[in-house]
Amino acid sequence: MTKIGVAVVGYGGMGGWHADRIGKMEKFTLAGVWDTDPARLVAARERGIRPYGSFEEVLADENVRLLVIATPNDVHKPLCIAAMRAGKNVISEKPVTLSVRDLDEMTAVAEETGMLFTVHQNRRWDDDYVTMRRIVEENRLGRVFRIESRVQGSRGIPGDWRKEKGHGGGMVFDWGVHLLDQALTMNDRNPLCSVYAHVTHITNDECDDGFYTELRFADGLTYMVEVTTNNFITLPRWYILGENGSAVIEDWDLNGKMTLVHDWDKIDSVPVKAGTGITKTMAPRTDETIHDEPLPKAHGGWEQYYGNIYDVLTSGAVQTVTHRQMRRCLKLIEAIFRSAETDSVIKFEEDD
Amino acid sequence: MTKIGVAVVGYGGMGGWHADRIGKMEKFTLAGVWDTDPARLVAARERGIRPYGSFEEVLADENVRLLVIATPNDVHKPLCIAAMRAGKNVISEKPVTLSVRDLDEMTAVAEETGMLFTVHQNRRWDDDYVTMRRIVEENRLGRVFRIESRVQGSRGIPGDWRKEKGHGGGMVFDWGVHLLDQALTMNDRNPLCSVYAHVTHITNDECDDGFYTELRFADGLTYMVEVTTNNFITLPRWYILGENGSAVIEDWDLNGKMTLVHDWDKIDSVPVKAGTGITKTMAPRTDETIHDEPLPKAHGGWEQYYGNIYDVLTSGAVQTVTHRQMRRCLKLIEAIFRSAETDSVIKFEEDD
Repeated sequence: MTKIGVAVVGYGGMGGWHADRIGKMEKFTLAGVWDTDPARLVAARERGIRPYGSFEEVLADENVRLLVIATPNDVHKPLCIAAMRAGKNVISEKPVTLSVRDLDEMTAVAEETGMLFTVHQNRRWDDDYVTMRRIVEENRLGRVFRIESRVQGSRGIPGDWRKEKGHGGGMVFDWGVHLLDQALTMNDRNPLCSVYAHVTHITNDECDDGFYTELRFADGLTYMVEVTTNNFITLPRWYILGENGSAVIEDWDLNGKMTLVHDWDKIDSVPVKAGTGITKTMAPRTDETIHDEPLPKAHGGWEQYYGNIYDVLTSGAVQTVTHRQMRRCLKLIEAIFRSAETDSVIKFEEDD
Repeated sequence: MTKIGVAVVGYGGMGGWHADRIGKMEKFTLAGVWDTDPARLVAARERGIRPYGSFEEVLADENVRLLVIATPNDVHKPLCIAAMRAGKNVISEKPVTLSVRDLDEMTAVAEETGMLFTVHQNRRWDDDYVTMRRIVEENRLGRVFRIESRVQGSRGIPGDWRKEKGHGGGMVFDWGVHLLDQALTMNDRNPLCSVYAHVTHITNDECDDGFYTELRFADGLTYMVEVTTNNFITLPRWYILGENGSAVIEDWDLNGKMTLVHDWDKIDSVPVKAGTGITKTMAPRTDETIHDEPLPKAHGGWEQYYGNIYDVLTSGAVQTVTHRQMRRCLKLIEAIFRSAETDSVIKFEEDD
C-alpha cells in the first residue's frame, strides 16, 4: 500500500488533532507540520514531528501529496489555492471559507488543477448524529416533521481568533457550520425553502456568540439549529418528533430514549389541573398507549472520512464531502447572517 | 357586602369551571347557566344550578350583573355585544374574539355602554408563570435575554369545535393565547418589534394543531413560544437564560432549578471529547464556578382575577386585563398567522 504523505498547516487545537490521527493511520504518513507560531514548531519537534521552515517548504516537499489546512478561517482560502496551484490536494478545516464568492474561486482552482479540494466535516460521523439519522431513516417514529439540534456552552467564545470577525470568528462559523452541514446532508435532495435566524451578542460585540435558526424544507420538515454559549443548564442535544413517537438524544454519550405511541387514537383523557386551569389537551399520556424504547445507537466511524480521501486519491472515488455540499452550506450561512441582520425570512434558492 | 349575580353562558368545560368557582366565592353568587345543549341544562339542574330557558332570559334577569361567556370562540362577539347592550358586564373566555377588527367593535360597545368588558386570562396567575416572572424581575439570573415558553401535548386537538376553523379552533387560539398574553403582559412597556412563526398540521388539516413563534422585543429580549400536540416526550415548561445564570421550570408543579455562575471569567477548560471531535467551547462548567439554587417559587393566586372584577364593579377600580392588552394580544395572534402563511417576519407596530 502506498502511504500518502500529509502535512498539517496550522498546528493549533484541530491541527494537533489531525496530526495525531494521521500519525496513527495505515494509509497516511505525517510528513510534518507548519505554523506561523515558532513555539508550536518547537512543540512539534519535541513530539518527534518535523517542523517545516516555511509554507513554501511544505509546498516544495515532494513527499507531501495532501495538505490539511487548520489555520484561522480567514486564511483557508489563500492557503488552499496556493496548495492546489503547487500540485497538492487539500483538506480545509471548517468553515472552508467565509463566503460563497470566495468558495467559488477556490472550487474553480480545484477544477482547473484537478486537485482534491474538500472540507473536514467530521461531525457527519458523530455517533449522536448518525443515531438521529438512523431514527429518521429507519422510520422509527413514523414520518419525522421536526428536528431540533442544539449545542449549548457556558463560556462564551474561546479566547483567541475565534472572537474576531476578521478571522471568521463567531459561533455560526464555529459549531454552526457542523450542525448546518448535518441538517443539509441528511436532506441532500430535500430542497431547503427558507431560513429564519437571530444571533446573540451576550459576551461579545464583534462576533455572534450564538444563534437560533429555523429551516423549512420542501417536504414540510422544520429543523431548528441552535448554538449558544451562555447556558448554565442545557437542553438535549437532539429532540426529534415523528407522527408516532418522539426521541431525545441527551448528549454525545447517547443517553436518551424513544417514546412510541402504539394506540394513537385512544386519546380520551381525564382533564388534569395545570396552573390555574384544567387541560385535556396537555394531559400526559398514560402507559396504556405509549411505551419507551432504547435509542437505536449507531456508530459513525469517523475514520471513514480519511478512508474516502484515500480512495479519492488512489482510485478515483467520489469525495464524500462534495463541492456542491460545501457551497450549499456556505450559502445557508450567508442566509443566516442576512436573516439575522435584516430580521427577515430568507428564501433559499437551491442551485440544483 | 353586595354579592354580584353572575350567569354563565356556555356550560362546557370552562363554563363548568367558572360556575363551580363562582358558587364558592363570597363576593359573587351564581344566578344560573345557559347552554344551547339541553343535556347540559339538565346536568346543571341536577347540580342544583338554575338552567335558563334562553339567552334572552339571562339578559332579562335583573339579578344578573355579570355574564361569563364560555361558548365556542366564534360566538363570543355577538353574545358579549348583546350582553353589554342589555346592561350587563361581561367576562369573555379567551380568546376574546378572532380578529382585531371584531374586538374593536366589541370595545366600542363597551365604551358606549360603560359596561365592564374583559377576558379571562387566568394563566397570568399560574404559579409557574409568576415564578418565572419573579426570577426575571428580581434579577436572579442577571439580565435575562432569552425566555422559552412551551406546552406540549400528545393528543392533537381535543375532539370538538376546537378542531374547526369556523369556531376559532386550533392551538394558537387555545393555549397560544395564554402563553402569548403572558409574554406580552410581562413586557407591557417593552415594545414588541417583530414576530416569526410557523404552524403545524400533523393531526388536523383545518386548524393549526401547534405553532412555534419567535418574538423580538425592543430591549433585545427574544421570547420563544411553542404550543404543540404530537409530543410523546416533553421539554421543560420554561427555559430562561440570563447573563449570570439559567433556570428551568419543568412543569406546573414547579419542579426545576436555577444554576448560577459566581465566577464567570474563570473559563479555562480542558477540551472534552464530543463526538468525533474535541471542544473547549462546549465543555461543561465544573462545580468551582457554578452552583444550583432552588426556584424562588411564587404563588399566583388566581382568585385575584375575580377580586379585581369585583373591585371594578363596586368601586371603580381599573380592570387588570385591559382593552389595550386584549388588542395587543389579538394583534400578535394575527401577526403569527400572517407570518406562518407568508413565511415571513412580521414587523409589529405597537399602538402606543
